Amino acid sequence: MDINQLTLLTDLYELTMMQGYFKSKNDETVIFDVFYRENPSGGGYAITCGLEQMIDYIKNLSFSYEDIDYLRGLHIFDEDFLEYLAGYHFTGDIYAIPEGTVVFPMEPLVKVCAPMMEAQLIETALLNIINHQSLIATKASRVVYAAGGSGVMEFGLRRAQGPDAGTYGARAAVIGGCDGTSNVLAGKLFDIPVLGTHAHSWIMSFDDEYTAFRTYADLYPDACTLLVDTYDTLRSGVPNAIRVFQELKDAGRTPAKYGIRLDSGDLAYLSKQARKMLDDAGFEDAVISASGDLDEHLIASLIHQGAPITSWGVGTKLITSADCPAFGGVYKLAASRHEGENTFTAKIKISENPAKITNPGDKIIFRLYDSETGKIRGDLICLSDESYDPSEDLTIFDPLATWKKSTLQGGTYKMRELLVPVFLKGKCVYESPSVMEIRSYCQQELNTLWDESRRRLNPQEVYVDLSLPLYQLKHHLLDQKHETKKGENK
Amino acid sequence: MDINQLTLLTDLYELTMMQGYFKSKNDETVIFDVFYRENPSGGGYAITCGLEQMIDYIKNLSFSYEDIDYLRGLHIFDEDFLEYLAGYHFTGDIYAIPEGTVVFPMEPLVKVCAPMMEAQLIETALLNIINHQSLIATKASRVVYAAGGSGVMEFGLRRAQGPDAGTYGARAAVIGGCDGTSNVLAGKLFDIPVLGTHAHSWIMSFDDEYTAFRTYADLYPDACTLLVDTYDTLRSGVPNAIRVFQELKDAGRTPAKYGIRLDSGDLAYLSKQARKMLDDAGFEDAVISASGDLDEHLIASLIHQGAPITSWGVGTKLITSADCPAFGGVYKLAASRHEGENTFTAKIKISENPAKITNPGDKIIFRLYDSETGKIRGDLICLSDESYDPSEDLTIFDPLATWKKSTLQGGTYKMRELLVPVFLKGKCVYESPSVMEIRSYCQQELNTLWDESRRRLNPQEVYVDLSLPLYQLKHHLLDQKHETKKGENK
Repeated sequence: MDINQLTLLTDLYELTMMQGYFKSKNDETVIFDVFYRENPSGGGYAITCGLEQMIDYIKNLSFSYEDIDYLRGLHIFDEDFLEYLAGYHFTGDIYAIPEGTVVFPMEPLVKVCAPMMEAQLIETALLNIINHQSLIATKASRVVYAAGGSGVMEFGLRRAQGPDAGTYGARAAVIGGCDGTSNVLAGKLFDIPVLGTHAHSWIMSFDDEYTAFRTYADLYPDACTLLVDTYDTLRSGVPNAIRVFQELKDAGRTPAKYGIRLDSGDLAYLSKQARKMLDDAGFEDAVISASGDLDEHLIASLIHQGAPITSWGVGTKLITSADCPAFGGVYKLAASRHEGENTFTAKIKISENPAKITNPGDKIIFRLYDSETGKIRGDLICLSDESYDPSEDLTIFDPLATWKKSTLQGGTYKMRELLVPVFLKGKCVYESPSVMEIRSYCQQELNTLWDESRRRLNPQEVYVDLSLPLYQLKHHLLDQKHETKKGENK
Repeated sequence: MDINQLTLLTDLYELTMMQGYFKSKNDETVIFDVFYRENPSGGGYAITCGLEQMIDYIKNLSFSYEDIDYLRGLHIFDEDFLEYLAGYHFTGDIYAIPEGTVVFPMEPLVKVCAPMMEAQLIETALLNIINHQSLIATKASRVVYAAGGSGVMEFGLRRAQGPDAGTYGARAAVIGGCDGTSNVLAGKLFDIPVLGTHAHSWIMSFDDEYTAFRTYADLYPDACTLLVDTYDTLRSGVPNAIRVFQELKDAGRTPAKYGIRLDSGDLAYLSKQARKMLDDAGFEDAVISASGDLDEHLIASLIHQGAPITSWGVGTKLITSADCPAFGGVYKLAASRHEGENTFTAKIKISENPAKITNPGDKIIFRLYDSETGKIRGDLICLSDESYDPSEDLTIFDPLATWKKSTLQGGTYKMRELLVPVFLKGKCVYESPSVMEIRSYCQQELNTLWDESRRRLNPQEVYVDLSLPLYQLKHHLLDQKHETKKGENK
């Protein structure tokens, strides 16, 4: 979809509710939080991503005549409401955690503060954009971490869920740590490295594998990765590659970067055999890259088996986050304020499941770092008017198991507020860094995690606590709901 | 992404290979097949989908100056090749199985016959589009089948992998059998029904649930589905809904369509209790709809438990095909012909895994139906010059287990050729039906499956056999490869 024409990218119920608010002359300014409840893929964190596209979406919000005509044809909207839509633009405030930041469950990744109708319209598209890119950035960071220092390339376009999934997915994958993508459009749009060599069809279009390799090497003398599994990896592919490398060497033009790619078979066995054959022939610096249904677990397993693969092409399972193909971000009402009122009234959504009860009120998030190591000690979700002095002791507690307390000694920790202003009164006040800048920032961010929270399986949970004022507000509202319910049951 | 500007939506290696073909003055016309190897989600079939978008993509293929500039900046392409790209347009033939058709593994869903360079460029985008929409249409057909006669609505936009995934996914979901989508943009673009009522935030924006329901019912007097789980489904939601329905009834304006929606909790228990409460209050025709992390298995289980739910809103797990988030379509070289040659030379890609060996040559597919029941007896992949007379006996055999033979008696079966021309000499010769027409066609198609092949778990495989000439060609090529290899190993 053209990012500039996404105004109708919304659930119908957003529009029917908007008409309801319009008709009932709703004068509220509301706060909605975007947050998620569970880290993807059983991990210990997520990477928030997609802010730049969210900004583009908000900036371009506007119903065309065609849009209005279409809505009129549904016969559920009145002319006065359609007229309102024709003049719609976003006038509210949006705060967000910058892209590439490490985040945890229950934290507002985006906070929308706007007139009810405006805030309602954007729910679906905001979630769509943030959910998708955060999912892929998180997955990419897991794959890259599993690969240790080796490079990971994003190769999934053909299996992505449509053109956007392939293209914004490539963006998110690079932010999450991939070195580049095979997707040329993503390369152009986001100024990120594009990578790739040739497919089996290249080999098959020649009478023999050697000629295919040799032709390719002559064409691309600087970087030459030969795909060796079209016919028989060890009996044909690797020997033919070595023959070509030898010819180049003899001619005094060994490429700066060269090597082979394995795309099928037992990658552990084949890579070890190929390494030996390459080394025996004097090509110790030939890179062995691998592709073919890889994910973080397979890569970790191959490295554990000693496979001498130092470059990974990861497709389907990264670009779809195959083991966890959706990031469960939600958009929940946290507070509202009628016209003329000075303060927000906190709102809560209750549930029988304690983890599903929302955190009420206008909130901010402080990240607490250990001063010495720079690692994250925990996050503290607070009400927006709270402030702390890191030279003083700070006692935090688990919001579900309140007896679990911990005190951070003054002077041993640092604080950073995570949410930054993105739109104020409808005007964008945030300039997105380049994708490669976000990628660098994300690498720093990942380094603020303890290894125990970063690991692939059974990671240590990072504590996200509520400040005492927020905790008290929440419990006050829960008690209130209980009283109301008791009253109703009389 | 704007469907009109997808020319760079390709893997870099397609372009590096193209330059290779360009430099070596490759004069071949080639045939590439798009096919897949395994039905998604463990099912017995797939629904092919996405042809209309593939056509739009091909029609709009053209490198802009900006595209060329970008490619020049990569410093891997020479000016003569960039000049060729600047004038690129697709001049080949494309055949495809119409959207909404039931298909099986190994069958060419799309057959591209074009000059090598043209055919190479379009690989990635073709796969991206066909893979995505076929995946979602197939998943939707599974969910709709599990729901029996009840309606299924597509509600997944917020969890889809980007705007395209939400929008083309909604298109595919409707083709696969959903009654409509919540996605307004998809409704506008594809003229498909849009559906939805209100969210928890609507309820929370009022002081109490009753007022929220009543206000909504007054606004939408024709169709009124009330979401009853914001506070307490059975103690608050359903009683308040009944109160509103009673008031409407008393006022003589019961909506044509009305009911409740359950979005959390134990849907089996809650739906039975809610049904009883509604019936006791005289609202036997109130519809109970349900949503919340549903898929075909949960729906089947709820129906099995006797849950009186007759309308289903399915989100995340449909729009991402969560249990199988990629359709493994591939694009493989099947034949080539040098300029001046009259016939194609068949090409084969071998593999140690017999299922991964490609079917060579220029192929067509005949579907064989039982004349009496109209059900599929099997498919026969043939070479393009084969023809059959259904008044004569036809013996088909399993291509891997050739002793498994079966003879269709003349006069008891019908044949239909599946691939139809879409582009001839670069000109589109196919007009896409409307999405709702494709949906009807798809329902007919699904009815040609025996129930045993349509079921959710462990379906009976539908036989896809090779004609004797194709089988012989394949084995001839395999023997040839073997001889070559023996020669090389001497």
